Amino acid sequence: MSPSPLDRRSFLGLTGAAFVCTLAGQRVSTEEGQIDVDRLAGGVEVPPRVAAANGSAASASAAAVATASAQVREYWIAAEQRPWNIVPTHRDQMMAEPVKGHSTFEAYAYRPYSPGFEAPLGPATVPGPLIEAEVGDTVVVHFRNRLKAPVTVHPHGIFYSNEMDGAYKGKWTDPGGFVQHDRTFTYVWECREGTEGTWLYHDHGPMDPLPVFRGLFGPLLIRKAGEAAPNRDFFLAFHTWDPSTTGLRNTYYCVNGKAYAGNTPTLEAKVGERVAFHVYGVDNFFHTFHLHGHRWTEPDGTIVDNRTFGPADSFSFEIAEDNPGRWFYHCHVFQHLHQGMNGWYVVS
Amino acid sequence: MSPSPLDRRSFLGLTGAAFVCTLAGQRVSTEEGQIDVDRLAGGVEVPPRVAAANGSAASASAAAVATASAQVREYWIAAEQRPWNIVPTHRDQMMAEPVKGHSTFEAYAYRPYSPGFEAPLGPATVPGPLIEAEVGDTVVVHFRNRLKAPVTVHPHGIFYSNEMDGAYKGKWTDPGGFVQHDRTFTYVWECREGTEGTWLYHDHGPMDPLPVFRGLFGPLLIRKAGEAAPNRDFFLAFHTWDPSTTGLRNTYYCVNGKAYAGNTPTLEAKVGERVAFHVYGVDNFFHTFHLHGHRWTEPDGTIVDNRTFGPADSFSFEIAEDNPGRWFYHCHVFQHLHQGMNGWYVVS
Amino acid sequence: MSPSPLDRRSFLGLTGAAFVCTLAGQRVSTEEGQIDVDRLAGGVEVPPRVAAANGSAASASAAAVATASAQVREYWIAAEQRPWNIVPTHRDQMMAEPVKGHSTFEAYAYRPYSPGFEAPLGPATVPGPLIEAEVGDTVVVHFRNRLKAPVTVHPHGIFYSNEMDGAYKGKWTDPGGFVQHDRTFTYVWECREGTEGTWLYHDHGPMDPLPVFRGLFGPLLIRKAGEAAPNRDFFLAFHTWDPSTTGLRNTYYCVNGKAYAGNTPTLEAKVGERVAFHVYGVDNFFHTFHLHGHRWTEPDGTIVDNRTFGPADSFSFEIAEDNPGRWFYHCHVFQHLHQGMNGWYVVS
Repeated sequence: MSPSPLDRRSFLGLTGAAFVCTLAGQRVSTEEGQIDVDRLAGGVEVPPRVAAANGSAASASAAAVATASAQVREYWIAAEQRPWNIVPTHRDQMMAEPVKGHSTFEAYAYRPYSPGFEAPLGPATVPGPLIEAEVGDTVVVHFRNRLKAPVTVHPHGIFYSNEMDGAYKGKWTDPGGFVQHDRTFTYVWECREGTEGTWLYHDHGPMDPLPVFRGLFGPLLIRKAGEAAPNRDFFLAFHTWDPSTTGLRNTYYCVNGKAYAGNTPTLEAKVGERVAFHVYGVDNFFHTFHLHGHRWTEPDGTIVDNRTFGPADSFSFEIAEDNPGRWFYHCHVFQHLHQGMNGWYVVS
Repeated sequence: MSPSPLDRRSFLGLTGAAFVCTLAGQRVSTEEGQIDVDRLAGGVEVPPRVAAANGSAASASAAAVATASAQVREYWIAAEQRPWNIVPTHRDQMMAEPVKGHSTFEAYAYRPYSPGFEAPLGPATVPGPLIEAEVGDTVVVHFRNRLKAPVTVHPHGIFYSNEMDGAYKGKWTDPGGFVQHDRTFTYVWECREGTEGTWLYHDHGPMDPLPVFRGLFGPLLIRKAGEAAPNRDFFLAFHTWDPSTTGLRNTYYCVNGKAYAGNTPTLEAKVGERVAFHVYGVDNFFHTFHLHGHRWTEPDGTIVDNRTFGPADSFSFEIAEDNPGRWFYHCHVFQHLHQGMNGWYVVS
Repeated sequence: MSPSPLDRRSFLGLTGAAFVCTLAGQRVSTEEGQIDVDRLAGGVEVPPRVAAANGSAASASAAAVATASAQVREYWIAAEQRPWNIVPTHRDQMMAEPVKGHSTFEAYAYRPYSPGFEAPLGPATVPGPLIEAEVGDTVVVHFRNRLKAPVTVHPHGIFYSNEMDGAYKGKWTDPGGFVQHDRTFTYVWECREGTEGTWLYHDHGPMDPLPVFRGLFGPLLIRKAGEAAPNRDFFLAFHTWDPSTTGLRNTYYCVNGKAYAGNTPTLEAKVGERVAFHVYGVDNFFHTFHLHGHRWTEPDGTIVDNRTFGPADSFSFEIAEDNPGRWFYHCHVFQHLHQGMNGWYVVS
């Protein structure tokens, strides 16, 4: 077999474990296997505004931060590479089966730091750290890119001006849409009225969606001002690790970077608690969220125990916990469920 | 061609009529064609709590039934195998075409019985019998498994304690999550406040989802207490028969086990009637429900004539019938529509 | 390679750029490539009621028009064939890349005419012309088929009697469900109470869905009586051009017939304006609509910036424009986004 032509765009025709090559926009040929993001990134030109800003000492966003009168929630977050084991137990506790095959690859992940990037606050994780604020706050994310390829932070839901959207836009790209290796960009976003909710953030740079599919996403929560937090907040990203981005043999349907109960988050709560679930999707697929032994009321008043959502959809619901036991949460697409998209919810 | 490796998990990467094998968790190799569920079931160990309960004369659920003070709705349901013809007319009335190919296979189906399993109340059907109750009721399902492989009944929406969820959970499995050949388990579920709605029930045992994809699912309706029933209640399961579970050559996109108008349910109503549609999904795919010549108001107040839903989603709507004629209902995914997921709604 | 058997039904198992043949209902064999609709249409029998009506001078709908007391909105629309360039700039402005490959094919498109089909009001377009009315109005569409294959106009949402549904129904087909080459049929539809909303119309004739997938669809808006229009109304169809219907090499994920920013509609608005988006789906896939820098309130009160919708789903939302800049709108299925389903929204 000759090498398959494969680039950023061509890998996108994913269907289950297989991918279908498109023939448009080919830039490189690779053997079947992991796409070489760094190599691809070498072919991307630095957009003109980004090049101009590179010579400037002042951050484009300094003025915006200075004039923000509301409370400022400040985060220092880096994008880093790290080994990531998708199925660390090599077991599927739901079906009581082994999960064969090598399951560790080099992921991209957001990592929280103390102010000034002095010291990491923990490891880089998939998903990245929770960004949390209240309506009225200003969120400032100091973002450092420790990857070789340019990446960004693009938020959902929150208010941001055009140059703060963290999106690559070809020749119209602002510096926040193309953060180069070892550079830092400071994003300033505003929690205006009407931005409350559970959202996600993710890379939206020139290599999109490859860095997202290698782990560059995380949760963003904007509470109403003064709103009392529930006893538990669970943030659950439903997404897929694909062979073309991991170099692994299998596709894994994941919750928060892990696959199969016992590897995915085992959520714990107690009877009597207010428990909030915050669910979002970050892949090419549509999913449902199903919780055994429980049901909740949707904003339209309907009672459900299963809900459809798509890529970048996010939603929350709260339950008053009343049912002890060992329960499953899972995607109810049977294929996804049985390829890892399930976990335990243990109520004592 | 050498035999394809194929097991419970590997068949799940379905896309249209094709399936993509995953390489994890292979337990058997089979020729292309129907997965041998009984053979696979032979490799599943009896979970410890199930083995312990097998020696016990008392049903784990007897106490619960005895203490139920509300009205008890009692059902006797067996899981059985039976021949099932997906396209009995061998015609597609929508397109006025023949539907070629053998369309009968050995399905799994729930069958209703009189008390004590004295006599069948009718044939085993796909979907299984309607389980119907009101808020405040207790539902008791005496379930007998006449299949060789262990299967269960797992309900949506209704309240159940942990040992009544009918779900296989590996070493944590309760007897209700692993009902063996020729054994009976009695499920006790409660229609508490906040469980009203249209739901589904289905197998969730150790062979999941193979038995579901061979027919083990059915509708569950919980009305509000004292609520007046409409003139017509139509329960419509949107699902797929796949070659790997039927052994047939083609994939069929079905409503209630049948494919193509004239085989799927021909619904009938009269002008002036209140007509309720109860729709749910039971496969790997997302569907829409579209009804010609009619529209309805969603709980959020929007008016629609087409609605997206996913696996295990269920929803209901009611119309005041005002438009006589021969109408289609169908999934509006064009591929699904034209591979059988359509039927007649005849209003006189 | 021997010719692949391929017909109207067999092309339906589309997955990304590939299609999976089903084996049912084969009528012709073709080389890989564009399906020959005209040739297939030659094999379809004229339904009995259509044949009977062909000899009649009077339109079946004349009486209905005459008795309509409300305002009549009258349209003259033809279905025509025309060359259609999906990527006229041969550039993807989002990723600043060329889009290689021939992108012009012979589309089917609805074209607006002056009364009596005197003169075209503009070119045939994909989507077709907006049909617009208010609750209380009667919509009359004089439809002329200039294609060789029989096609129709089937509307969503609006009220229509059975013979006005524009749907092929095999032997039950009315003349409006099978409009032959060079014939005209007049559809009469009513904007009754409870039909307000954004809808779509599309072919639903005997070749369905081939003509839809070659461009026969368009938007239908029914405003509430006396409702003030927003400053801007954007109608966006999310759909796919597939090799089997275009004869082109690639699959294109499109908005309004075009793929990739700079080719898809560049929407323009000004700060302070009320801007309405009307979005609908017309292919085999589920999509999301995401708008950068903005969010909106759903009818159930939730705030979102991304929404899932399926084939023939349609929805609208309105924003009070407050955020200048060059923004993206796009489907957030990453595969679709990067195969063309994105565009610019420029706010000044």
